[in-house]
Amino acid sequence: MARKSNPKKRRTGGPQGSVVVIGLGRFGRALALELIDEDTEVLGIDENAEVVQSVSGSLTHAVRADSTKEDALRQLGVHEFDRAVVAIGTDLEASILTASLLISFGIENVWAKAISKAHGRILTQLGVHHVVYPEHDMGQRVAHLVRGRMLDYIEFEDDFAMVKTNPPADIIGLPLSNSAVRTRHGITVVAIKRPGEGFTYATPETVVEADDTIIVAGRTRATERFSELQ
Amino acid sequence: MARKSNPKKRRTGGPQGSVVVIGLGRFGRALALELIDEDTEVLGIDENAEVVQSVSGSLTHAVRADSTKEDALRQLGVHEFDRAVVAIGTDLEASILTASLLISFGIENVWAKAISKAHGRILTQLGVHHVVYPEHDMGQRVAHLVRGRMLDYIEFEDDFAMVKTNPPADIIGLPLSNSAVRTRHGITVVAIKRPGEGFTYATPETVVEADDTIIVAGRTRATERFSELQ
Amino acid sequence: MARKSNPKKRRTGGPQGSVVVIGLGRFGRALALELIDEDTEVLGIDENAEVVQSVSGSLTHAVRADSTKEDALRQLGVHEFDRAVVAIGTDLEASILTASLLISFGIENVWAKAISKAHGRILTQLGVHHVVYPEHDMGQRVAHLVRGRMLDYIEFEDDFAMVKTNPPADIIGLPLSNSAVRTRHGITVVAIKRPGEGFTYATPETVVEADDTIIVAGRTRATERFSELQ
Amino acid sequence: MARKSNPKKRRTGGPQGSVVVIGLGRFGRALALELIDEDTEVLGIDENAEVVQSVSGSLTHAVRADSTKEDALRQLGVHEFDRAVVAIGTDLEASILTASLLISFGIENVWAKAISKAHGRILTQLGVHHVVYPEHDMGQRVAHLVRGRMLDYIEFEDDFAMVKTNPPADIIGLPLSNSAVRTRHGITVVAIKRPGEGFTYATPETVVEADDTIIVAGRTRATERFSELQ
Amino acid sequence: MARKSNPKKRRTGGPQGSVVVIGLGRFGRALALELIDEDTEVLGIDENAEVVQSVSGSLTHAVRADSTKEDALRQLGVHEFDRAVVAIGTDLEASILTASLLISFGIENVWAKAISKAHGRILTQLGVHHVVYPEHDMGQRVAHLVRGRMLDYIEFEDDFAMVKTNPPADIIGLPLSNSAVRTRHGITVVAIKRPGEGFTYATPETVVEADDTIIVAGRTRATERFSELQ
Amino acid sequence: MARKSNPKKRRTGGPQGSVVVIGLGRFGRALALELIDEDTEVLGIDENAEVVQSVSGSLTHAVRADSTKEDALRQLGVHEFDRAVVAIGTDLEASILTASLLISFGIENVWAKAISKAHGRILTQLGVHHVVYPEHDMGQRVAHLVRGRMLDYIEFEDDFAMVKTNPPADIIGLPLSNSAVRTRHGITVVAIKRPGEGFTYATPETVVEADDTIIVAGRTRATERFSELQ
Amino acid sequence: MARKSNPKKRRTGGPQGSVVVIGLGRFGRALALELIDEDTEVLGIDENAEVVQSVSGSLTHAVRADSTKEDALRQLGVHEFDRAVVAIGTDLEASILTASLLISFGIENVWAKAISKAHGRILTQLGVHHVVYPEHDMGQRVAHLVRGRMLDYIEFEDDFAMVKTNPPADIIGLPLSNSAVRTRHGITVVAIKRPGEGFTYATPETVVEADDTIIVAGRTRATERFSELQ
Amino acid sequence: MARKSNPKKRRTGGPQGSVVVIGLGRFGRALALELIDEDTEVLGIDENAEVVQSVSGSLTHAVRADSTKEDALRQLGVHEFDRAVVAIGTDLEASILTASLLISFGIENVWAKAISKAHGRILTQLGVHHVVYPEHDMGQRVAHLVRGRMLDYIEFEDDFAMVKTNPPADIIGLPLSNSAVRTRHGITVVAIKRPGEGFTYATPETVVEADDTIIVAGRTRATERFSELQ
Repeated sequence: MARKSNPKKRRTGGPQGSVVVIGLGRFGRALALELIDEDTEVLGIDENAEVVQSVSGSLTHAVRADSTKEDALRQLGVHEFDRAVVAIGTDLEASILTASLLISFGIENVWAKAISKAHGRILTQLGVHHVVYPEHDMGQRVAHLVRGRMLDYIEFEDDFAMVKTNPPADIIGLPLSNSAVRTRHGITVVAIKRPGEGFTYATPETVVEADDTIIVAGRTRATERFSELQ
Repeated sequence: MARKSNPKKRRTGGPQGSVVVIGLGRFGRALALELIDEDTEVLGIDENAEVVQSVSGSLTHAVRADSTKEDALRQLGVHEFDRAVVAIGTDLEASILTASLLISFGIENVWAKAISKAHGRILTQLGVHHVVYPEHDMGQRVAHLVRGRMLDYIEFEDDFAMVKTNPPADIIGLPLSNSAVRTRHGITVVAIKRPGEGFTYATPETVVEADDTIIVAGRTRATERFSELQ
Repeated sequence: MARKSNPKKRRTGGPQGSVVVIGLGRFGRALALELIDEDTEVLGIDENAEVVQSVSGSLTHAVRADSTKEDALRQLGVHEFDRAVVAIGTDLEASILTASLLISFGIENVWAKAISKAHGRILTQLGVHHVVYPEHDMGQRVAHLVRGRMLDYIEFEDDFAMVKTNPPADIIGLPLSNSAVRTRHGITVVAIKRPGEGFTYATPETVVEADDTIIVAGRTRATERFSELQ
Repeated sequence: MARKSNPKKRRTGGPQGSVVVIGLGRFGRALALELIDEDTEVLGIDENAEVVQSVSGSLTHAVRADSTKEDALRQLGVHEFDRAVVAIGTDLEASILTASLLISFGIENVWAKAISKAHGRILTQLGVHHVVYPEHDMGQRVAHLVRGRMLDYIEFEDDFAMVKTNPPADIIGLPLSNSAVRTRHGITVVAIKRPGEGFTYATPETVVEADDTIIVAGRTRATERFSELQ
Repeated sequence: MARKSNPKKRRTGGPQGSVVVIGLGRFGRALALELIDEDTEVLGIDENAEVVQSVSGSLTHAVRADSTKEDALRQLGVHEFDRAVVAIGTDLEASILTASLLISFGIENVWAKAISKAHGRILTQLGVHHVVYPEHDMGQRVAHLVRGRMLDYIEFEDDFAMVKTNPPADIIGLPLSNSAVRTRHGITVVAIKRPGEGFTYATPETVVEADDTIIVAGRTRATERFSELQ
Repeated sequence: MARKSNPKKRRTGGPQGSVVVIGLGRFGRALALELIDEDTEVLGIDENAEVVQSVSGSLTHAVRADSTKEDALRQLGVHEFDRAVVAIGTDLEASILTASLLISFGIENVWAKAISKAHGRILTQLGVHHVVYPEHDMGQRVAHLVRGRMLDYIEFEDDFAMVKTNPPADIIGLPLSNSAVRTRHGITVVAIKRPGEGFTYATPETVVEADDTIIVAGRTRATERFSELQ
Repeated sequence: MARKSNPKKRRTGGPQGSVVVIGLGRFGRALALELIDEDTEVLGIDENAEVVQSVSGSLTHAVRADSTKEDALRQLGVHEFDRAVVAIGTDLEASILTASLLISFGIENVWAKAISKAHGRILTQLGVHHVVYPEHDMGQRVAHLVRGRMLDYIEFEDDFAMVKTNPPADIIGLPLSNSAVRTRHGITVVAIKRPGEGFTYATPETVVEADDTIIVAGRTRATERFSELQ
Repeated sequence: MARKSNPKKRRTGGPQGSVVVIGLGRFGRALALELIDEDTEVLGIDENAEVVQSVSGSLTHAVRADSTKEDALRQLGVHEFDRAVVAIGTDLEASILTASLLISFGIENVWAKAISKAHGRILTQLGVHHVVYPEHDMGQRVAHLVRGRMLDYIEFEDDFAMVKTNPPADIIGLPLSNSAVRTRHGITVVAIKRPGEGFTYATPETVVEADDTIIVAGRTRATERFSELQ
C-alpha cells in the first residue's frame, strides 16, 4: 500500500496511491467501493466487526480497529499514508479524535465528512484539508429536482449549473447550430442521449429528437428556465 | 399554498407549486432553504420543536408535528399537496410510516431519502416515486476527488461524467477548435472560468489559459484520464 | 421442504406444501405447532436463540436468524417457499423489513400479523397478501362473551355469526323440526353436545335436552337475542 | 353505570350491565368498542393519557388512572362493577396487580388477557374467572387458513369445527338433501352466501351453485378434507 | 435431600427435612445459613452466578437457575420438596412467577417474602402459606429501641411483648419474689444476664444486680413503661 | 419538636423526644408509624414526593428533601435533633452521605439501616451509633420457623431464645410447677394464651391446656427441642 | 466587564480584565471563586441550572447556557471578552465545541482543561493558548508526598522543585549562613514558619528551630534527599 | 514489595517502601508513574482490564481487581502495605468502600482523592489520613495564571506563595543584594533561569537580566503585585 516512506512501492502499484478510509457507513463504503472500482487500493477501518466483515471481500484490506487510539492507527501503518478519509458517521467525538490523529501524523491530504456547521468548523481548525457535507449538499441538489422538471441537476460553482432534462419543442429537429439556444435561452447543450443508448457530447451538427434526453449548461436560472419550457 | 383542491391558486402563485418537506435535519433543511431561495413555498414539518424554531423564520411555514399520525398530517392539509419530500433522517420506522401515509393520500410526487438499500426497496414497494441516497451518492462522488486531481466530479448517468479540473499543457493557448481534445482525449470542454470570474460555457473560439479552471464532459474514464494529464 | 423450484419434491412430501414462519412468539408458535399437528412441514425462524431452542424439537426445522437480512433468508432457502407467515411480535421495523424481502422474493402467499391499523396499511402497500390482527379480532370476539350469556361466539362475515350457548326452555324436549326456531328466533341449530360427549351436527330429528350445549347460526342480533333467552 | 350496590339502576339501564375495561391497547379497545356497538356502557381505564384521549369520544367514560393502586380504582367506583376485563397488554406485573385488586373487591366476573402459559396460571390462581389468550388462539386459527384452501376456520371445541370454503364440484347444482354430504363427507352445510348477498343458513332444499361460499360444520379433519376437494 | 416421593430418605437424613431457598440475597442467605447451622439441608437457588458461587461452600447445594421457569425447577427436583422459601428480593414479577410454580407443584409449606402490602395480598391469593415482611417488621421493632431505653424489643402478638433492658432501682438487690414487679409494674422478669455471662431464665429466688441485663414480658405498654424507669 | 438547642420544649413535650426518620420506604415508614402510635413526634424526610405525600397525614411532619445536601437538612432543623434514623433503602451512596452529615452535626443517637456487611462497616467507621440489618436478621429468625414447628421465634442474644409454640403432651393438664419443664427440658414457660384471649405471663399455678399457645424461654437448642415434642 | 470592543471600560475597571469561565464543576468553580477573591470580575456559565444557582451569589454573573451554541455565547457577549477558561469537566465533545467557538471569536487568551493527552492535542490543534491537566499534574505532585517525608512539593520546571518539610538536625540552631546547606545539600532554604505563625522568607541570619517548618528550593533530587534527612 | 509482615524485604528494596495505588485514571496513573520514576515500587489496581493493560509494562505490578471486595484486596496482599492511595476517579461509592477496607486493614498511611467537599468529609470520618482535591486545588492555582502575568503560581500555605514570572525593569542589571526587592516589593527572589538553561537558586550576587525567568516568594498579594510590574 502507498506509504510516504516508500514512494517507489506506490508507483509500482499503479498511477494512483492507495487511500485509508476510516468509517465504513453508507458514505465511507460507497466512497471506498468506488475507489476500488477505479483500481485504487483501499485500507478500510471501522470499529464495528460486522461492518468490516461485510466489506472484507471487496476492499484491499478491511480491519476492525478503534481509530481514536493512536496505537491502533500506527499498528496499521495509517501514519504512512498520504491520503486519508474520515468518513465517521454520527459520532462527533470519534470523528474529531480520529482527524486530530491523522493531522498529527502529518498526512498530506485528509478528507473528512462533517455532519453540521460546527463540526465542519472544528475539522477545519484542526487542519483537515477538505471538509464534505453530504446531507447538506444532496439536500440542495435534490431541491432543484423537486421543484422543477429536471431529471438531474448539479451546480459546479455559484451560478453555473448542469441540468439533465427533456428537450423543449423549439429545439427539436434542428441541428444545434441552428437552434440558437445560446442566444435565446442563455444555455449550451453539452450532451445528448438517444433512447436505448448512452450519453455522448453534443456537436453543432447534433439534431435533437423529441424523445432524447439532454444535458445543458449555463447560469443556474437560465438552466432552470430552459427546463421549464418542456 | 398549492393544494390539489385549489389548482387555480397554484397556477396564480407562479410556475412552481409549493412543497411539503417532512424532516428538517441537514438534508431536509438544505433542501427546504434551497426551495425558498428559488421562490417556492415550503411547509416544513419536524417532530422536534427546537428544530422547527430554528427554521421558523426561513420557511413559509414551519410546524412541529408527528408525521406518523394521519390526523396530524390532515390537520396541516398535507393530503392536499402534490409534492412532498420525506427527509426523515435516521428513524427508519418514522420514515416508512410517513411515506405510507403520503402515498395513501394519493400525493402525486413523493420524494424520500433512504438510508440503506433495504430502506430504499421498502419505499419503492410502498409506492414512493423518487428515492434518494445522499450518503451513498456523495460517497461515490467524493471518491473521484480523493483519488485524482479533479476539483469536482459528477456522473450524470452510467459512464458519462463532468469533471472540473485544471487544463493540461497541450490545450493551453489554442482555440478549443484547434486543440483536438475530442479526438485526442475523447472529451469536450463544456465551460471555462477565468481567475476572478464566473464560469461561462466554452465555444470553439475559446482559448484556455494556464490558470483557468475548466469543466469537461465525456465518458467517465476519459474525463479521469484527462484530469490526470495536468 | 416445499420449494418453488422443485414442485415434485413438494408433491411427494404430501398434499400440503411446507410453510416458513418468521417470528416464534405466542402467535407464531401456536400457528407453527398447529401446522405441525396437521402434518405440514414448518421452517421456524426467530432472532432469539432461546426461543428457537424451545421449539427445536417440535418443528421440522427451527433456526436462529435475522430475518431482516436478505443474505440470511437466502441461505435458509426462504426465497424458494411459496407460503410464508411474518409473525413478528412487536418490532414494527423488523416486521416491515422482513415482509419487504419476502415480497421481493416473489413468494406467492405471504401472511403477516399487524399490530396496528398503520402497520396493516404498510403491509398491504408492500404487497402482503393476507394481513391478520390477532389482538383486535380477539377483542371483538371476547366482547360478546363478556356482555352476554354465550359460551363462545364467532362472526364469519358481517351480520352472520355462530354462537355456543345453553338451550332456552322453549326448544327443550322437542325434535328441532317441531321447535320452529327458524321461524320464531331467526336462527338455526347447527350442532349439539350431550354432557360428556363431543359435538355432532344437528338434524331435524335431534331433540335438545336441558343440559345440552348447542351451536346456533344466524344473523348476529338474532343469535344474541336467542342466547339471552336462557 | 351498573354497580352492585344499585342493581335497580342497572336493570333500568337495559338488559346488559355495564363493564369496566382496564387497558385500552388493541385488544381492550376493540373489545370496548364492540361492547359500545352493542349498547353496553363501558368504563375504560388506561395509564396512558394519550390512549385515553384517543377513545374518550367513543366510550361511555374513559379515564387515565393507575389500575395497580387500590385507591385509584375505588375512586372510580370499580369495586362496584360486576363485570371487569383486565386487558393490560404486555406489563405482566401491572396485569397481576390489577387482577389481584379486582378479585379482592369481590367482582363476580373478571376476564383477563394472558400473554403466556405462566401468566394464565397465575391469573387462575388469583381467582380470575375467564382467561383469554388472543395471540395463541389466533395463531392456531390462522394456521388452518395458511395450510389449506379454507376462507375462514373456527374450532368451537376439540374436534368440532366450522369452515368457510368454496363448494366442491360434486355438491353443486343439487338440493343439499340430495348431495349426501353428511354420508359421504361427514359434514353438514350450515350456511350459504350467494355472490353479492349475505349468509343465510342452509335448508335441505338449498341448491349450492359454483360461485357460492358455504360454511360447513363437522369433525375437524372432515371439514378440512372437504375444503381440499375444491 | 427430603423429597415427598421418598419419605424414608428424609427420615434417615435426620429429624428435619431439607428446604429449598430461592433467592440468595441478604434475607435468603441469612435464612439458608441459619438452617445449615441447625443441621438442615438446604438447596439454594439464585439466578446470579456470582451470588451462587459466594455461598457454594456453605450450603448443601447451591445452583444458578431461573426459578421462573418450570423446567428449570423440575430439573432440580424442586417439585419434590415439602418446604420452600421464596426469598426473591426486589423483582416482584419473579417472586410471583416462582411462588405460582411452587404452589402448582403442590408443595405443602411455601414461605415467601413480600415487599409491599399488594405483593403480600397476591402471594396469599396464589396460595402461599406464610408471607413475611422483613423491612416492615424490623421497622416496627426498631421503633421501640429508637424511642425508649430498651436494648431490644420483640412483640409476639398484639399487646404482648418482650423487652431487654437494664433493671430499675426498685427491683435491685431483692429476690424477684419480693420485688412485686408483677403487682406494681404488670410485667414478669423472664431472664437475667450477669456481666460476662449468658442469659438464664429467672426464678423467684433470682436477685437482680445493678449491672445485670434483664428480659421482661408483659403487655406492650407495661414493658415500655417499665423500661423507662431506669 | 425536640431540638438540642431547646431542651425545655422537649421536656414539656412529654417523656419522649421527637425523632427524624430519613427514608420512608417499608422499613422507615413502619418505624415512623410505630413511633407515632407511641406518641412520639416524627419528622419524616424522603426525596420522593409521592412517598412523602402518602404519609403526610400520618406523621407529625413529612417533607420532600434531598438528605445528602447539608443545606437541605439544616433548613429543616435536622441538626438540632438528638435522635435520627437513616432508613434509606437501597442507595448506598445516599445512605452514607446522609449518615456522614448527621454525624458531622453531632447528633447523639444515630441509627442506620445497613444492606450489607460492608455498608455496616462504613456506617460504623463514620461514627453511626446503632446499625441495623433488617433483611439479615429477619432471615435468621424465619429460618427457625421454616425448619421446625414453632409459631414464632426470637433470639435475644447468642444462645438464649424465646419460642411461641403449642404445648407438648407431657405438660398438659398440670400446674407448671408440677410439670418440671425446667428440669426435663431446660426451658421455662413465660406466657400462655388461651384460645380467643391474649397472652398473659405464666405463673407456677398456671395449668396448660392442649389448645393453648405458649411462649417458652431457654437456650436456643433447648427451646427448639422442646418445640419438636409436639 | 472587560470586552474588546470597549477597552476603556476595561482599563477603568482596574489592572485586571474580567474573565469568562465556562463549566462550573470543581475545577471551574474553584478557579472562578479564586478570581473573585482577587477582585477580578467573572462571568460563569454552566448548562446545569442547579450548578449555576449554587454559585449565583458568589460570581459577578452566573448564567445557565449551552456553551456549544454560538448564538447562546454571543447573546452573553462572550465574543467580546479577551480571557476565557473552558473548564468543562468530562464531556469531551462539549469542551471541543466550546473551545472551537471561543477561538473562532478571536479571543486572545483561551485556557482549557484537558482530561487526556488526546483531548489536550485537539485543544492545541484548535488553537487554544493554554492547556491544563489538573488530574495528571496533581497526581505527579502528590506522588512526592506519598513517597517521602515532605509536607508539600511543587516542581516549577524540569528538575527544579520546592519542598515544604521539617528541618534535619544538622541545620537546627544555626544561622542559615553558617549551616552550609547549599554546599552540603545543594539546596537553599527559601522560607520558614515558626509554630503558630505564617511563612516568611528566610535570610542568612535566620536560625532554624526543631519545630519550624521550612521551604527549600533546589534540583528535584537534592530537595528530596534533603527531606529524607529528618 | 514492602509489606508490614516482612519489613526486612522492604529495607533491602531501598530507602522507600512500596505503595499500592488503587484507581489508575489520570490522577492515579500520573502518581504511580512518578513514583516509579523515583524508584518506588508500585502495585497498581484498577477494575478496568484495558486500563490495567495500558500500564502493565510501566508499573512493578498492575492487576485488574474489584477493590471494593475484601477478598480481592487480601489476595493481592494489600492489607500488608503501609502506604496506599485511593485514586478512584468518579465513583463515590467505590472510593468509599475501598477506603473503608484499607482503614479496616490498619494501613498506616492512606491517601485518597476527593471529588467534593462531602466526599472529603466522609473520607476523613472513615479515618483516611490525607485527602486530596486535585480539581479544586488546580482550579485555584490556575486562577492566578489566568488573572495575571505570572508564568506559574503555587501557594504553600495561606498567604505565602511562589510565583514564576519575568523580572520587572527595576531589578534588571543589578546584583539582587542591591535591588532591594525585599524592602520595596516584600518578596524575595528564590531562583533564576537564564535562556536555554535550567533554574538555579539565586544568591545575593545574582544579577537578573531582562530575558531571565525568576521565581519569587512572599505573601500572596506581594508576589502578585510584583508580577504585575512587568
